[in-house]
Amino acid sequence: VAAERRPATFRLAVEYDGTDFHGWQVQSRHRTVQGDLEHALRRLAEGPVRVTGAGRTDAGCHAAGQVASVKLVTRLAAERLQRALNAILPPDVRVLEAAEVGPDFHARFDASRRAYRYLVHPAPTALGRRYVWVRTVRATVAALNDASRAVLGEHDFTTFSKKGSDNGGPRCRVTRARWRRRRSRLSFDIEADRFLYTMVRRIVSTVIDAAERGTGARAIRAALASADRRAAAPPAPAHGLYLMRVRYPRVGWVPKEPLDVFA
Amino acid sequence: VAAERRPATFRLAVEYDGTDFHGWQVQSRHRTVQGDLEHALRRLAEGPVRVTGAGRTDAGCHAAGQVASVKLVTRLAAERLQRALNAILPPDVRVLEAAEVGPDFHARFDASRRAYRYLVHPAPTALGRRYVWVRTVRATVAALNDASRAVLGEHDFTTFSKKGSDNGGPRCRVTRARWRRRRSRLSFDIEADRFLYTMVRRIVSTVIDAAERGTGARAIRAALASADRRAAAPPAPAHGLYLMRVRYPRVGWVPKEPLDVFA
Repeated sequence: VAAERRPATFRLAVEYDGTDFHGWQVQSRHRTVQGDLEHALRRLAEGPVRVTGAGRTDAGCHAAGQVASVKLVTRLAAERLQRALNAILPPDVRVLEAAEVGPDFHARFDASRRAYRYLVHPAPTALGRRYVWVRTVRATVAALNDASRAVLGEHDFTTFSKKGSDNGGPRCRVTRARWRRRRSRLSFDIEADRFLYTMVRRIVSTVIDAAERGTGARAIRAALASADRRAAAPPAPAHGLYLMRVRYPRVGWVPKEPLDVFA
Repeated sequence: VAAERRPATFRLAVEYDGTDFHGWQVQSRHRTVQGDLEHALRRLAEGPVRVTGAGRTDAGCHAAGQVASVKLVTRLAAERLQRALNAILPPDVRVLEAAEVGPDFHARFDASRRAYRYLVHPAPTALGRRYVWVRTVRATVAALNDASRAVLGEHDFTTFSKKGSDNGGPRCRVTRARWRRRRSRLSFDIEADRFLYTMVRRIVSTVIDAAERGTGARAIRAALASADRRAAAPPAPAHGLYLMRVRYPRVGWVPKEPLDVFA
């Protein structure tokens, strides 16, 4: 029995390989993830569709777990919508989870925390060429963790932002910043209530520099305090960056099961 | 000071993303890894070049560590050759190591062991679409290991081979066969003195079937004993398969440092 057509709101967990996208946000001339999603939804809905992402990832950046809120008029239940979308979407975007939510749900405004990961590999690699930053890091994991500890807590992150990106102000509260090594590959996990544009990539490059120079947490604290973009290193490349998951009050982390292909 | 031009033999450790190749072996109409290597070497050498791979991986299959022997007339030392090759080769092939070796070295005939890995992931994935087999496995790691233990030792592997591939006979000695789980991703590591064409992929699919059905090692032993290809499941797809490294007497494993991008 087909359900009645009704206006509905869905929360989608979306994975994508950012390689062939010009980022998340719709652009008239370029392929974007939001654009592909809206295009697919228009084939499944009657009338307008509206898609909002929790984070606007830039060109080349990947998502193991972006979250989107979707408004449309449809007969479909969440699970059917997910299957239908995956049948239409190209293979470099997958809908991992779908849930029908209340009409007030907003993927961006309701998010209380975002988790990003950054991957660094020391040697040129064919298999990783789109998925890790190739850079030899001449510092220990302990030194990296010591330096990055300085970003924990609430700070003005102007130093680590792109000019003109501060439409919510420069303050962010970082609740996790941790490096790990798995064989020769380094990963950096960072969580905050919000992120400024290119913030993770600027923290990654600047923290590596500080750990290598031995200036550590002191250098990072001074860079933060200066609120001067010239105190940060140029951002690490986008293709090493992954939006991993997004946290919502009462719901918890979305997606529930973080993707582990490159874990 | 430039060295004298001389006939030289090199051992190369080569990594590649198999996605855009029609396998390793030179073909007249299709892009292959051996073809790309020979093309690059011809720009660096005077006269003919000859490249031999330790394993002839098929279309779509990857290599974290293929080994090639290369004969050419050149002035270049091994390290310079490696750098020059990486400057010419496309980014989906990288030379990880290069060493000058004696004129008798032969990457295929001298290899005493090959190590392959196969990756399985339960959910459709954008990031892994070229790098893992998407298949839900309804069996424990213990059950998978129990079933695959039956391939250890020396056996006639006709059951797990493609017709017409047995130019060295059907007998192989498997020295390792082990499944591991990392979160929801499964990996299967297998080592043997030699492998028949599609052998790893047929073992993977047949072992998963046996573990899921609960017929385990008994089913695998019976399949082996039958020497009948119909006793095996259709081969798992090539894009989940990685040639990891190759072992040589006195030298040990090549490459020395196994690649760990997707480790």
